[in-house]
Amino acid sequence: MNQPVRVALLGCGVVGSEVARLLTEQADDLVARVGAPLELVGIAVRRIDRSRAVDVPRDLFTTDAHALVTRGDVDVVIEVIGGIEPARSLIVAALESGASVVTANKALLAEDGSTLFEVAAKAQRDVYFEAAVAGAIPIIRPLRESLAGDKVRRVLGIVNGTTNFILDQMDTSGTGFDEALEDAQARGYAEADPTADIEGFDAAAKAAILASLAFHTRVTGADVHREGITDITASDIASAQQMDCVVKLLAICARDERPTGDTVSVRVHPAMIPRSHPLASVREAYNAVFVESDAAGQLMFYGPGAGGSPTASAVLGDLVTVARNRLSSVTGAGESTYAQCEIAPMSETLTSYHIAMDVDDAPGVLAAVAEIFAHHQVSIATVRQTGRGDDAELVVVTHTARDAALAATVESLQSMPIVRDVTSVMRVEGVAE
Amino acid sequence: MNQPVRVALLGCGVVGSEVARLLTEQADDLVARVGAPLELVGIAVRRIDRSRAVDVPRDLFTTDAHALVTRGDVDVVIEVIGGIEPARSLIVAALESGASVVTANKALLAEDGSTLFEVAAKAQRDVYFEAAVAGAIPIIRPLRESLAGDKVRRVLGIVNGTTNFILDQMDTSGTGFDEALEDAQARGYAEADPTADIEGFDAAAKAAILASLAFHTRVTGADVHREGITDITASDIASAQQMDCVVKLLAICARDERPTGDTVSVRVHPAMIPRSHPLASVREAYNAVFVESDAAGQLMFYGPGAGGSPTASAVLGDLVTVARNRLSSVTGAGESTYAQCEIAPMSETLTSYHIAMDVDDAPGVLAAVAEIFAHHQVSIATVRQTGRGDDAELVVVTHTARDAALAATVESLQSMPIVRDVTSVMRVEGVAE
Repeated sequence: MNQPVRVALLGCGVVGSEVARLLTEQADDLVARVGAPLELVGIAVRRIDRSRAVDVPRDLFTTDAHALVTRGDVDVVIEVIGGIEPARSLIVAALESGASVVTANKALLAEDGSTLFEVAAKAQRDVYFEAAVAGAIPIIRPLRESLAGDKVRRVLGIVNGTTNFILDQMDTSGTGFDEALEDAQARGYAEADPTADIEGFDAAAKAAILASLAFHTRVTGADVHREGITDITASDIASAQQMDCVVKLLAICARDERPTGDTVSVRVHPAMIPRSHPLASVREAYNAVFVESDAAGQLMFYGPGAGGSPTASAVLGDLVTVARNRLSSVTGAGESTYAQCEIAPMSETLTSYHIAMDVDDAPGVLAAVAEIFAHHQVSIATVRQTGRGDDAELVVVTHTARDAALAATVESLQSMPIVRDVTSVMRVEGVAE
Repeated sequence: MNQPVRVALLGCGVVGSEVARLLTEQADDLVARVGAPLELVGIAVRRIDRSRAVDVPRDLFTTDAHALVTRGDVDVVIEVIGGIEPARSLIVAALESGASVVTANKALLAEDGSTLFEVAAKAQRDVYFEAAVAGAIPIIRPLRESLAGDKVRRVLGIVNGTTNFILDQMDTSGTGFDEALEDAQARGYAEADPTADIEGFDAAAKAAILASLAFHTRVTGADVHREGITDITASDIASAQQMDCVVKLLAICARDERPTGDTVSVRVHPAMIPRSHPLASVREAYNAVFVESDAAGQLMFYGPGAGGSPTASAVLGDLVTVARNRLSSVTGAGESTYAQCEIAPMSETLTSYHIAMDVDDAPGVLAAVAEIFAHHQVSIATVRQTGRGDDAELVVVTHTARDAALAATVESLQSMPIVRDVTSVMRVEGVAE
């Protein structure tokens, strides 16, 4: 039997305590899978005296995280503190002290993953982060390894459970955003301050990580065009239903071939997708990531996107691989940025819009509206006119066009006297052109 | 730059020619991902003179597969011939000659995987086989690695595209089995001799592989209880629709805790699942694998289950990993059979049945039928009586019970004078008890 692999845990909250529990309860299984026992040598917490549900010896707890990761005899550090600092300094110190790292820290990876990967490469240690995106759903490993011989074209993800729960509630019960948010908070799916979720920051961090892996290029959170769901109204949802669509907050990563070299666009925004699309059936707080690649075609990965146990499962999976790597004195594949694609700005990204507007019920309205689209060189895919008199409504779905041209079209429509109100503007995804 | 990794390809049919194409077209990408060029040094085929769509030098082709794998300078052998022999002898010879192996051969793995894994372990080489189950869908790697720190309870898979296409056709168009099969053959989804698909042999091989990985125990194709879809009638499908269910050919692998030690049951048979279940929306020839584990919860992996390109994508993903392992002189995790669970016979497996029968329209029929269920100690979950007179029908769904008890119940029902005909018997899966 090999010497134990020594593990230090940073953080003992919802995820950390589950990791500690699984390390104890699954010890026999883990020995069989790793080829050596995993020994938990310390748990860094902010306050020692807090009562915890986890059954580990009291003397494992320490408030000195830095001393724990630099003591020199730790093989793997698990970081589940979250946030930028002190997580970054601790991970760097751990790597420089000879430990490999397993982290669930999407914010840090999206902001400054390259620092971690560079330090890890220099120290010849691993940084694994399956838990950082979509909880327990294995998506990092498939992108990094399973699809390594393929070319990924697009990744469409529902990567935030809170917003998916809210939008699903609005879709099924017809409630407005505020009510659905309150419901999500009451059920524990949304935090008291829901900003990171509903404004799309959490999804944008995950989108940056997914795009980096999918396209072998460096993408940070700042590269991601981000729109949240706070402006989504019951009327938007109803509009989507009339189109046999559902509204989802999507993380969309695309690689576009251009004569001057491939570009990458990464964006998070609400979008209508057809109910027949596999992502449309992702309900409640579940997550899913849909991948389109040249050879494999369309793949989807579905599961719980958050929560202590699912996230801990992903951490443990990484831990087993990293521990095995330590025993063999090797490291897994590091950061891959050879493609070095340019990031396309949102204005240049090709999207298509669904636009609903109240219009005057008079001859020539459609011709006038169509003229505006033509002026901005936006091609119309479908038009639907409904109602008469004060209820006259026009619904236009466009073909793909530059997002800036579409936005300019909406602006022009809003200033037309015959357009009484533009009631819903939303991008459409998941439709074959 | 490292020395090239030398690759030999066995077979150049639908999958093999796609592998050869990707090796050439993605060469630059592969160098970046592997850290060394991949050099195709030979392709073993049955007939040299056949014209092929693949653009490689003619002198790479050979009819002497054995000489190719034993020449001693091959780092990785890709086996896409299929079948038991000569594939097994060639893989063994390749491993013993120092090559790692990537294979898509589900039949061989299900029948005699342990031989391959033992030879590989002794030779300190890899055998990878992502392409053997569910085409391009990364499922082997998640089970082997991502969920390595978790405990898998159940795997439910739609792992045969042909049968899923046929059942989906029957569900959407109301046609019978024969017509749907002809349609599948006309569209290239079913072979001229469809036996391996429609009788469940293909799915059973994949079930054995999935169960082995999920439960860390050795399961062969012979351990799998297998029923095909040839007896499914339009009336079965209609019955399912009335229950808001859909009929799928499922591969079901379950680990059951027993006082005398966990047992494993592995079975392939048609079953009704609720339309709200994620697997119900897997349409046409797509595949999906649904995994239930202690910590991660419910995960699903979805994608194309067959075809040259998707399968080649899975082969290439494995090739990248195996090539990287060769460069580092390490191997990935080998076969894991430490759990050594006993295989429970089908008769002891807990299932639930949906039973539809034409009955006499007379007082006391329900009481008499219920008595039969009670006699066999089968608990009834729901009963529905419809129609009057000659159309009187009784539909019973049971709670879970030993499969043998359920089968005996059906036999007793069939011999009851008041039961004119048992029109549909099908197991029900994916319903919370």
